[in-house]
Amino acid sequence: MTERDAVLAANLEFYRAFTASDYRAMETLWARVAPVLCIHPGWPPLLGREAVMQSWRDLLANPEPTHIMCHDDQAFLYGDFATVICEEELANVHLVATNLFVKESGAWRMVHHQAGPILAGSYEGQPHRPH
Amino acid sequence: MTERDAVLAANLEFYRAFTASDYRAMETLWARVAPVLCIHPGWPPLLGREAVMQSWRDLLANPEPTHIMCHDDQAFLYGDFATVICEEELANVHLVATNLFVKESGAWRMVHHQAGPILAGSYEGQPHRPH
Repeated sequence: MTERDAVLAANLEFYRAFTASDYRAMETLWARVAPVLCIHPGWPPLLGREAVMQSWRDLLANPEPTHIMCHDDQAFLYGDFATVICEEELANVHLVATNLFVKESGAWRMVHHQAGPILAGSYEGQPHRPH
Repeated sequence: MTERDAVLAANLEFYRAFTASDYRAMETLWARVAPVLCIHPGWPPLLGREAVMQSWRDLLANPEPTHIMCHDDQAFLYGDFATVICEEELANVHLVATNLFVKESGAWRMVHHQAGPILAGSYEGQPHRPH
């Protein structure tokens, strides 16, 4: 398995844990040493492992699990740091996510997640679309 | 100047270049060697320097410049990689951004930007708010 494959596997584990409401797996996936951050769609940023893991505890405790499919996942490596860009399909919304990982104790661990809607609006106030 | 200060200075340079419609400065700021990505709000992801810089060329050519204020900027360092989380105030929208930087030829260069609205909606389909 290449490093890129290992990063993509960690990214898929994130979506598996999310869809399965598997808090224990989610808790294992997030880094323990490196700084941990998370920006859930529409939320202000959460900084620090305690705040981030509390948000997952709350979200995964929801009695109606989130059905979320990840596709078009692409990994970009920068030494022991990696970025995954992927799209998220939910029942009623189409999001794009940035997921960040660091190599910690030999495993790729998550340090950041930001997701936001695709086609939700215009760029920072301006009615532009990509060419 | 600490490395953290240098990263925050690079982040502020991004917003200065954006507000000033200074494409030359924006072009200098983005990495030349490391993989470059960008997710403008509502857009599908742009991958690769050519696509990302074309988007900035188009956005900064708009005759009505974007007035964008960055605040609550915080930097998190992971060796030669850094994440900045900050909020963006525009005339009619409040966004939160993830900006990623790598150390390249001794300078912090941008490799990724994702911005999305705060308080725009619910988390990945679910009506949750942080606690």
